[in-house]
Amino acid sequence: MNIPESNLQRVVIVGGGFGGLQVAKNLPAGKYQVVMVDRHNYHCFQPLLYQVATAGLEAGNIAFPLRKIFQTKDEFYFRMADVLEVDSENNRIITNIGALRYDMLILATGSATNFFGNKSLEGHSMAMKTIPEALDIRSLLLQNFEKAIDTDDLNERRRLMNIVIVGGGPTGVELAGAVSELKMHILPRDYPDLDFRWMEVKLLEGSDRILPGMAEVSSRKAEGFLKKLGVKVMVNTMVTDFDGNVITTKDDEIPAETLIWAAGVHCKPPEGLEPSVLVKGNRIETDVYNRVKGEEHIYAIGDAAFMPTEKYPDGHPMVAQPAIQQGRNLAKNLLRELKGKPWRPFRYVDLGSMATIGRTKAVSELPGWKSQGAIAWLIWIFVHLMALVGFRNRLVVFITWLYNFVNYNRDIRLIIRPFQTKKERLASLNVASDVPSE
Amino acid sequence: MNIPESNLQRVVIVGGGFGGLQVAKNLPAGKYQVVMVDRHNYHCFQPLLYQVATAGLEAGNIAFPLRKIFQTKDEFYFRMADVLEVDSENNRIITNIGALRYDMLILATGSATNFFGNKSLEGHSMAMKTIPEALDIRSLLLQNFEKAIDTDDLNERRRLMNIVIVGGGPTGVELAGAVSELKMHILPRDYPDLDFRWMEVKLLEGSDRILPGMAEVSSRKAEGFLKKLGVKVMVNTMVTDFDGNVITTKDDEIPAETLIWAAGVHCKPPEGLEPSVLVKGNRIETDVYNRVKGEEHIYAIGDAAFMPTEKYPDGHPMVAQPAIQQGRNLAKNLLRELKGKPWRPFRYVDLGSMATIGRTKAVSELPGWKSQGAIAWLIWIFVHLMALVGFRNRLVVFITWLYNFVNYNRDIRLIIRPFQTKKERLASLNVASDVPSE
Repeated sequence: MNIPESNLQRVVIVGGGFGGLQVAKNLPAGKYQVVMVDRHNYHCFQPLLYQVATAGLEAGNIAFPLRKIFQTKDEFYFRMADVLEVDSENNRIITNIGALRYDMLILATGSATNFFGNKSLEGHSMAMKTIPEALDIRSLLLQNFEKAIDTDDLNERRRLMNIVIVGGGPTGVELAGAVSELKMHILPRDYPDLDFRWMEVKLLEGSDRILPGMAEVSSRKAEGFLKKLGVKVMVNTMVTDFDGNVITTKDDEIPAETLIWAAGVHCKPPEGLEPSVLVKGNRIETDVYNRVKGEEHIYAIGDAAFMPTEKYPDGHPMVAQPAIQQGRNLAKNLLRELKGKPWRPFRYVDLGSMATIGRTKAVSELPGWKSQGAIAWLIWIFVHLMALVGFRNRLVVFITWLYNFVNYNRDIRLIIRPFQTKKERLASLNVASDVPSE
Repeated sequence: MNIPESNLQRVVIVGGGFGGLQVAKNLPAGKYQVVMVDRHNYHCFQPLLYQVATAGLEAGNIAFPLRKIFQTKDEFYFRMADVLEVDSENNRIITNIGALRYDMLILATGSATNFFGNKSLEGHSMAMKTIPEALDIRSLLLQNFEKAIDTDDLNERRRLMNIVIVGGGPTGVELAGAVSELKMHILPRDYPDLDFRWMEVKLLEGSDRILPGMAEVSSRKAEGFLKKLGVKVMVNTMVTDFDGNVITTKDDEIPAETLIWAAGVHCKPPEGLEPSVLVKGNRIETDVYNRVKGEEHIYAIGDAAFMPTEKYPDGHPMVAQPAIQQGRNLAKNLLRELKGKPWRPFRYVDLGSMATIGRTKAVSELPGWKSQGAIAWLIWIFVHLMALVGFRNRLVVFITWLYNFVNYNRDIRLIIRPFQTKKERLASLNVASDVPSE
């Protein structure tokens, strides 16, 4: 990778998500040479992916070109590449476009969908961690309705209309709410030939309540909101298999074409790290300065980092805030280093959590103040608008939300690139689709 | 296809472009049963495709869900399907999801990119007639710059940065202008490591002037505007081949990775029509009522229709206005039919034509008034905003244009789905990329 050498120390940031972005933003020009490497050329605002998947927002509304962030700073470089390996002995990383030397390496590689080794589930389910994945879900949802009107087999029609979401965390809850609103307000107008009493939206959660990371009152209220929207919430329910036609749980079989998997994440750090530092879900163990255990010049932040503390013995939650705060803290420590000052340990300030279920329906837990319903919903809107990167994105998202709210509408229900399910791909290869799970 | 039978006559419209949309909009509910079939579930505003390709607009800004247009009318149906064949003997069409009976069939199938049989050109060039194609161009443009910074071979770098547009009609001219503005205002800030004096934007036209469909003054002015933006305009230049590395013209070889082909269209009507009705570029010959020659119940409109008249012996121009006006006229004639009134022949009202080249630079020919420069540019903006389908689209496009104008910026420079060139696809299949033209 041809990055010119300079007399500044080189900080290489792998990943332009919430954490990596904060490191870059908080390092002023002229202190370090900064190189960010990401496989995409944009930052994706993951908390709103579910709205891209449900035709509420455009892909571009929640993405921001990473190069734009670097425009104003000298000695800041961006490279679009896949990082394959960390070669810590030689202080360099290996990417698909060559090797890159570092003085400090920051792994902000986030997390990926975890199917816990179930290949059949992985092959037939939809994940929702990236923009292309969200667009695929949007296409599949709409394609299924196009197919449903075209079949006279009522069982098949119901199967095509069913949407099953697995995982009762904020992502699953918000997605279930958004799909239900499609069912209530949008789809019946678009498909007058279909009877939407047949369509079922199911949210499956393995533990005994949805939003298990939040307080009980939030779980209870969120479940109430979902039920009002017609979502069937099933707790204590583990999915064991999905063959593209029927979802199997411990006690039941659910015929459905669409399973959206929001039930787990794990980390996929580059190769080359000491196996002993990869702990729970492959997170990379760090000390309180985000320095990777046993390494001197490698740091991990955000989802990728496992930093056990007294208050968080199991590591920090894998959401945006710890990543943002660790990114900021690490950048400040790197600046302290230059001044010969001692580093400050990371201390997580829990700003709370929230989930929106639908129009005027949300749950919010701010420090010292829990709320549910319309107030929580307005807080949710405000927080998410402010957190979006880019003024244009904020403005357009605000207008789109306002427009959709007033009109009970979502105009982005476009099948730009039709999605081919695994069944269809196999069929087009003339292979039986009921091959045993690989 | 399961469309319920009704006691109304059934009008089947194939294609939801400018023409098909007008037929549907101008037929009130309760007069006919209307079925529209399109392979996409949205109407695409093709005149702005070049802005999607050059990161100025989102895909969703220029698309409108077709089902939404049909929501309010009874006995209006939409089906997403590929029409394969017209079986006029049995008054039905054959699609990939089954057959459909018609009483009247309207072919509004538009036109497709024409490579004039040159397979090698077709395989390596980018077309721009659909939204996915425009998104592919956007990805490829940006990917090439990511690659260009990563090579030390200056010739290869220049080759990657070169953009060649073939076809000097409005599409080619507008695209060349938009790419040049990227080169002038956006890309140098994003890629400070590249020297943009190396980047060449070339517009190749086979005839002796660009915009050959407009007056000479417009051609001259447009060429002047393009030159000011640094576009190299080459008239009397025919491309004979492109192998993915070098573009061959009669007298020259141009090393380039990207060739955008806007040099010709032809029609691809469904199978089954009498070969004798397929004339120039496969357009379907009709009488002045848009009735297909020799057929009683089949009509063709817009690009798909070849209607020679005294004023237009070679058929009407293949642009939006004839399609819109023919669609309207045909719908009105269908209503006249119900009242037993005689049909009115189509008469084209030329509302003029225009092309925008860049900021405050456009040429416009309205009836009786030619203008160039800022006034023409304002007219262009007004006309295109008004013509967009959907209030939200208009509002968001207006805001985006205003934002981009003020900031000299285009935030949508996102590589959402990386594009794989034919060379790369062949390479990944371990096949030599220099196979002889198929």
